[in-house]
Amino acid sequence: MTSTRATLLQVAQRAGVSLASTSRALHGTGASPAMVERVRAAAAELGYSPDAIGRSLRLKKTFQIAFAVADIGNPVYVEMMRAIHEVLAPRGYRVVVMSTGDTATSTAELVGSLGSGVVDGLIVSPLRTDDRLVREILQAPVPVVVIGRAMADRGISSVSTDSAGGIGDAVRHLHSIGRRRIGFLNGPLDTTPGAARQRGFDAAVDAERTEVEVAADFTVAAGLEAARRLLERAELDAIVAANDLLAIGVIRAVRERGLSVPEDIAVTGMDDTEIGRVFLPSLTSVSLGSTERGRAAARLMLELADDPESAARQVAVSPELVVRESTGGGA
Amino acid sequence: MTSTRATLLQVAQRAGVSLASTSRALHGTGASPAMVERVRAAAAELGYSPDAIGRSLRLKKTFQIAFAVADIGNPVYVEMMRAIHEVLAPRGYRVVVMSTGDTATSTAELVGSLGSGVVDGLIVSPLRTDDRLVREILQAPVPVVVIGRAMADRGISSVSTDSAGGIGDAVRHLHSIGRRRIGFLNGPLDTTPGAARQRGFDAAVDAERTEVEVAADFTVAAGLEAARRLLERAELDAIVAANDLLAIGVIRAVRERGLSVPEDIAVTGMDDTEIGRVFLPSLTSVSLGSTERGRAAARLMLELADDPESAARQVAVSPELVVRESTGGGA
Repeated sequence: MTSTRATLLQVAQRAGVSLASTSRALHGTGASPAMVERVRAAAAELGYSPDAIGRSLRLKKTFQIAFAVADIGNPVYVEMMRAIHEVLAPRGYRVVVMSTGDTATSTAELVGSLGSGVVDGLIVSPLRTDDRLVREILQAPVPVVVIGRAMADRGISSVSTDSAGGIGDAVRHLHSIGRRRIGFLNGPLDTTPGAARQRGFDAAVDAERTEVEVAADFTVAAGLEAARRLLERAELDAIVAANDLLAIGVIRAVRERGLSVPEDIAVTGMDDTEIGRVFLPSLTSVSLGSTERGRAAARLMLELADDPESAARQVAVSPELVVRESTGGGA
Repeated sequence: MTSTRATLLQVAQRAGVSLASTSRALHGTGASPAMVERVRAAAAELGYSPDAIGRSLRLKKTFQIAFAVADIGNPVYVEMMRAIHEVLAPRGYRVVVMSTGDTATSTAELVGSLGSGVVDGLIVSPLRTDDRLVREILQAPVPVVVIGRAMADRGISSVSTDSAGGIGDAVRHLHSIGRRRIGFLNGPLDTTPGAARQRGFDAAVDAERTEVEVAADFTVAAGLEAARRLLERAELDAIVAANDLLAIGVIRAVRERGLSVPEDIAVTGMDDTEIGRVFLPSLTSVSLGSTERGRAAARLMLELADDPESAARQVAVSPELVVRESTGGGA
């Protein structure tokens, strides 16, 4: 036997299985007999030391990072999840997706329940935030990174974007193509994104007529329903929607009235999702860098996993307007 | 103190937190100090017995059920996930979503690594299946339910559907509206859904001209690329797509050539997803009962959780064609 000490990663590579499987197989729990045999054989071949096994046991590493969001069906989270996976998988981590539920309380409970032995870390994008949630994040036994509201001043690593500024970009784009009667279809105002996007609209709009309507949720179905009310109430030539799903609801409501997008009513979304890109007409949308935010959050997580005592950091990603058919641009 | 013994559920309700949080807080690991205090106070109030705590510890219940799929971005899985959550949440279980990866090997590895202490059970929808995967499922230390290929004869509880028959329904619908030059855009033929859907098309088609093209993946982007090749090769008046995402790729490719859906080319999808329902034109699609399949899988999981020795059962869900604008129906 050489004096070089084999690492867990080398055992995993020799066995041809993931770090997570290797760790569990060596713990002797939570792996199938076939997997245990395979990994132990690789460990024996490499002379992987029992000391290391003991260390790994004490650390209780799960090689799982949770990504928790309010609505797994929103494509913006799918893009974040893929980006997180791309950064974490090469380091041996599996990403598991969980639902926070809609409320700050349900999110706080999730954070409070995700201890060591369940996951090694949590990336969470809360729809609503309150003091209890902040406390649970600060007390969590595993590293937490927040995607959403900037929280570095509370000692929490976070990835934020300027969705208020992004809505402003959409409004100014509509001004620039001559639209003067502008509606805003927002999601619930007591959510973090709803509040920010409302501020952005109010600060930027400068039109003959403005009209605001609030959907029950950030979904296509809620957007369709709220857009019907908005179109009933006011004759508009443009509608800013607070995300792409709401914008698709708006386009369907406009069509129901026999009107055209963008000729009669120009429509903008937010998040620059795949569904918006492939929709007919394709959607002008404000990208909030979902892939970039996912990557940044995963990198902050790796920093915290390597050194849980490292200082909280904040990464800010800038919005960018992408003009497509729904406001008269190309496909 | 009364002689009635409090249950874990009663402690959870008194503390106002989930069963999972309660279980972890009582184990003394994996919960925040605030959560531990809250749950212990509730347990003390109710006189929850230390015996029960010990039993729960030995059982290592995580109150987590994994739902593992190849592509978290496919809306069909989002609908299944919601249905699974609806059945399991009232019983105190949290659903965690994981990626199987594309291959039978990566799926087998995931199954092999999900032991007790990680999750209490696994609902998996494998894109590809092989003998090793079947072995890992049979040896798994927690109950497994498969959504996809029927596996009751191998001793595995499964929820299946007849996607071959469903593709037949789509083909006969196109025949009935007079289409005679029918293309089939399938996903990879070495996948379980790809193989079944190809059999369904071959068995049902009876046209002047048929043309088959295979996309690299069951996604919009892969569908668009493959549909361009299909339209380049043959003049068709209808295209059957193997799922809704491929169908949206087809519609975009048809538009690129300056043709109309459904006037020039009628298009059908499969899975009856929300994106297909809200697309313009709305998509004629074969529902494979994703909500019903999710519910059935969750119920099978609860049966196995209550009695791990209960016999493997199979539930079959029938396909149903839903006619919409993309083949000349209403919105």
